[in-house]
Parts: sequence; structure tokens; C-alpha cells
Amino acid sequence: MQLPRQGDVADFIIAPDPQAPRLTRAVEGIDQTGATSRISVVEERPLTIFLNRHEIVTAMTIGDYPEYLALGFLRNQGMLLDDDEITGVDFDEDLETVVVRTARQTSYEDKLKKKTRTSGCAVGTVFGDMMEGLEGVSLPAAPLRSSWLYELAARINRTPSLYLEAGAIHGTVLCREDRPLVYMEDVGRHNAVDKIAGWMLRHRAEAADKILYTTGRLTSEMVIKTAMMGIPILASRSGFTAWGVEIAREVGLTLIGRMRGRRYICLSGAERLIRDVDPSSVPDEAPAHRRKSAAP
Amino acid sequence: MQLPRQGDVADFIIAPDPQAPRLTRAVEGIDQTGATSRISVVEERPLTIFLNRHEIVTAMTIGDYPEYLALGFLRNQGMLLDDDEITGVDFDEDLETVVVRTARQTSYEDKLKKKTRTSGCAVGTVFGDMMEGLEGVSLPAAPLRSSWLYELAARINRTPSLYLEAGAIHGTVLCREDRPLVYMEDVGRHNAVDKIAGWMLRHRAEAADKILYTTGRLTSEMVIKTAMMGIPILASRSGFTAWGVEIAREVGLTLIGRMRGRRYICLSGAERLIRDVDPSSVPDEAPAHRRKSAAP
Repeated sequence: MQLPRQGDVADFIIAPDPQAPRLTRAVEGIDQTGATSRISVVEERPLTIFLNRHEIVTAMTIGDYPEYLALGFLRNQGMLLDDDEITGVDFDEDLETVVVRTARQTSYEDKLKKKTRTSGCAVGTVFGDMMEGLEGVSLPAAPLRSSWLYELAARINRTPSLYLEAGAIHGTVLCREDRPLVYMEDVGRHNAVDKIAGWMLRHRAEAADKILYTTGRLTSEMVIKTAMMGIPILASRSGFTAWGVEIAREVGLTLIGRMRGRRYICLSGAERLIRDVDPSSVPDEAPAHRRKSAAP
Repeated sequence: MQLPRQGDVADFIIAPDPQAPRLTRAVEGIDQTGATSRISVVEERPLTIFLNRHEIVTAMTIGDYPEYLALGFLRNQGMLLDDDEITGVDFDEDLETVVVRTARQTSYEDKLKKKTRTSGCAVGTVFGDMMEGLEGVSLPAAPLRSSWLYELAARINRTPSLYLEAGAIHGTVLCREDRPLVYMEDVGRHNAVDKIAGWMLRHRAEAADKILYTTGRLTSEMVIKTAMMGIPILASRSGFTAWGVEIAREVGLTLIGRMRGRRYICLSGAERLIRDVDPSSVPDEAPAHRRKSAAP
């Protein structure tokens, strides 16, 4: 197996920018010895998303890529359609708003009346509709090499990120084969996924050959969003919920969880998996690369 | 410093029940070697909460303590008032509903029209109102001994839990001094907090002498909920967001984060903290007790 290259950020189309001044703030506190300590803490800002004349939602977000977040949120809610002509995406930093405009007239007031609170950071309105939206989804028979999984995990874990800098954040990475392409982070993991969806929509990116990697748990909502985006493979360091597994099996999504060092487990869609590397040749996770333990 | 006793579950008023059959499911998959593997996966079920005649929300929950979840959710949204006479709390397992009835007539339709999507698992309706609700909050000058923090962390980390059994879950523990009292887990950490709030409401528990411990991040919404419950101290293994810190400072809540072994950092309300133990006498976190790394 090829050893992972040292985090080559130049390979990313979008990589985290942990030094960006708007995303973190130095905050002073007292540590266990009573000494003053300054730590870096992630920001959390409201962003109100409008679709044409209607206010849809206020998301709490770290604040980067507001346009992608708005587009992806609306797309993942089924409020933007594949063939919608988007005539404008206007972010106003002072007002903390994004207005998405479409050629089509939209009205989602009825939709907004349905309220579901999902287990992971979700706006209510959404869930029933998303389940409906899944009926037409059919995911392609893309291959997944185990060597890609190991390479992706190794590269993502060593990429400088806000997580490593400040913790308290989720990451989602759009990947193709063994290459991470677009790495988004946010205080809510669904924002990170929505930003990926917005990027894909804006750039008309192919979904069938992609892998979505998340630092978060594989809940029903994560599975639904991934399937809605047309991505056939979802992988995570974290664990599963039973309903997430059930939905993945229904829509034919490959679900890989508990990726740590050489270990992982596939609870759905194992037919895509090609084991092209002997796991015992893969180094077990070094403590320094244990993302979840990385923050002090 | 007194050594932590081995997880004495009998001390808890409510402890996790990782063997409860409805909360987890054995799911079969394929591991990295291609071998069939059965793992335990947490459930995630819808629960629709009604207040009198109105459907308020559908939460995705692990499914235990639905009555506490409903009461606590409504209380933390400000839809149940301190002096409300609760005339019924009826859970219907088949319909997956809880109906909470009050002597007072309620109508929150206007409230339900405000939608905010917060960073951590939140229903929309809520956020603006919660910020309003904070205006009258004043948190008492309770002491916090550092020996309690160490003892609580040690005891909570060794308590058998769904997290240790199946991962992909958040825990929140209501504590008094060095004693964990009520330990709730759920797929959404806000559900775990709401179940605590429901328990407190049902048993008219004092808040001023309590400490809330969470496995999750210290976001604005966690801070707001804790303050709404009247609990003066919030502690976590995880990190902070800048807005969470800001709100904690505004309402005078003590905020302790990044608790790992002997380390922690206090970013708000340090005046409550009494350092009664030399941190260098505290053992550093043993790998086996690293909750976040405990799941395979």
C-alpha cells in the first residue's frame, strides 16, 4: 500500500483555512492551575437564508461560504430543483443574510409549517419532505477501494483544520477515489454537508463518482442528505444509528463507519467495496492522528 | 484527593441502561477483513410532542423517557411555565406521541412560525424566544470545587452507558457536588438535556446547587438551555464556541470545557471555582477512559 503523502493541501479544491481571522477568536480563561490561558474558539453566527421573497431559516454557522451554505441548504431541503435557474445569490455581511433568487416563482410556506426536530442539528420543516424526496433516488454502482478509504482518512486527519486548531466543529469532505476535494467545516455538521451540496450545485459537480466523508455520526439525516445529493458512499470515523443503517440499505447507499486506523465496518452496500489492501499492512492509528482526541 | 470509587451505579437516581432492549439493535456488517461482524447500534425513533391540542414538534430520539423529553422540551422552549399545572402526560408507544396537558390554555402557533436553525440539533421555533427568556435569568453564587469536577469526570467516564456500548450518542448528567444524579443519553444532545429538564420539572428539583455535565460541545444553545434551567455551572469534555462563551459571561454561568484527565479550562464564571486539589496529584487520563476514543 502506498504510504499517505504528507497532507498536501494544494491538492484540495477547497481546504480548511484555520488561520482565517473571522472563523475563530482568542478567548482568555483560567486553566486547572489557576493560570491565565488564551485559547482559540470557533465562531458561531446567525445566517438568515431567503429564497426569493421568503425568509426560510436562520442557521447558526461558523460563517464561511455563506453562499454555498444557502444554496446547499435549499437544495437539500428540496426547495431548489435540479433544473432551477439561479438568478442571484447575494450575501450581506452586515445584515447576516443570503438571498437566493430563482427564475421560478417559489412558495414554500406550506412546507415550512411541517416541523420535525431531527437528532442532528436539523431544522424542523424538512424531514418528512426529505423522506418523500428519497423515493425517486437511485444510487449508481460505483466501486469503493479499501485503499482509498485508508488514504482518505490519513490525508484528512493530517490536513490542518479548524478542528485541530480550535475543536468543537464538524468536518465533511467531498472526495473522489483517494483524493479529498472539498473540505468544509462548521459548528453544525449539517451546515458542513450543506456547504458541500451548495458547492456541487454551483459547479454542477458529478455526484456518482464521489465519496462523502464526515467526522460526525451516521444518523438518518446524514444518510438522507447524502442520498439526496446522489452520492453513493458515506464514510465516517463515528458510529451509526439503526435508522441511518436502515435508510442506507433501502436506498442502496454504502455506509462505512468507525474508521480508526486499519479498522472500519460496513453496514450497508458492501457490494461496492473492493478490498485491495491487506488491513494488517495498514498502521494502526497513531495517537497524534486521533482527531477526536486531538484537541486538548 | 480521594480516589474515584468504581462506578457506583446505585448512587445514581437514573443511570443509563445499556442493556435495555429497545435502545439498541444488533446489526450485521462486514469489517475490514471481510469478516461478518455484528455490532450494537443505537435506535433513533420519531416522537411527536403535543401540548394540549397542538402538535409542537417531532423529535428524533433514542426512545427512553419520552415523558421527560416532552416536558423538558416544552419547558426549555418556554411553552411550559414554572407555575403551570400539568394535568396529564400521556405517552402512546404505538403512535409514538406524547401529549402534555395543562390547566392553562396554550397557543403557540405564532411562536412556531419563527424558525431558527441552530448549530446543535435544534428545532427552529425556538432560538429568538430563548434569548428573550434569558433576560430575567440570574444564576446563584454557588461554589464549584475542582475536586468535584475530577470526581464527576472519573465517575461518569466509568459508568456503563450506551455510549460505551454502541457509540453515536450524547450524554448529559445532572450532578450535585461530586455526585452524578441523573444521567441521560440520546442521539441528539439537546434531547438528553431536555430529558434532564423534564425530570427536574417533574420532581421540582432545585437547580441552584446543581452542575450540568455534557459530553457535547458548549455551543450557544447548550449555554442558553442550562441558564434557562437555572443551573449555574456547565462542564464538558468538549470545546467551546465563541458565542457560547459570550452568553455564559452575560448571564454569569460558569463554563468549564476541555476536561481531560487533570486538565480543564474555565472561560466564564471563574469566581465560583475553588481549587481545592493540586492538579498534579490527579492522574492523567488513561486511554481506557477516553470516552471519545472508547468506541471501536
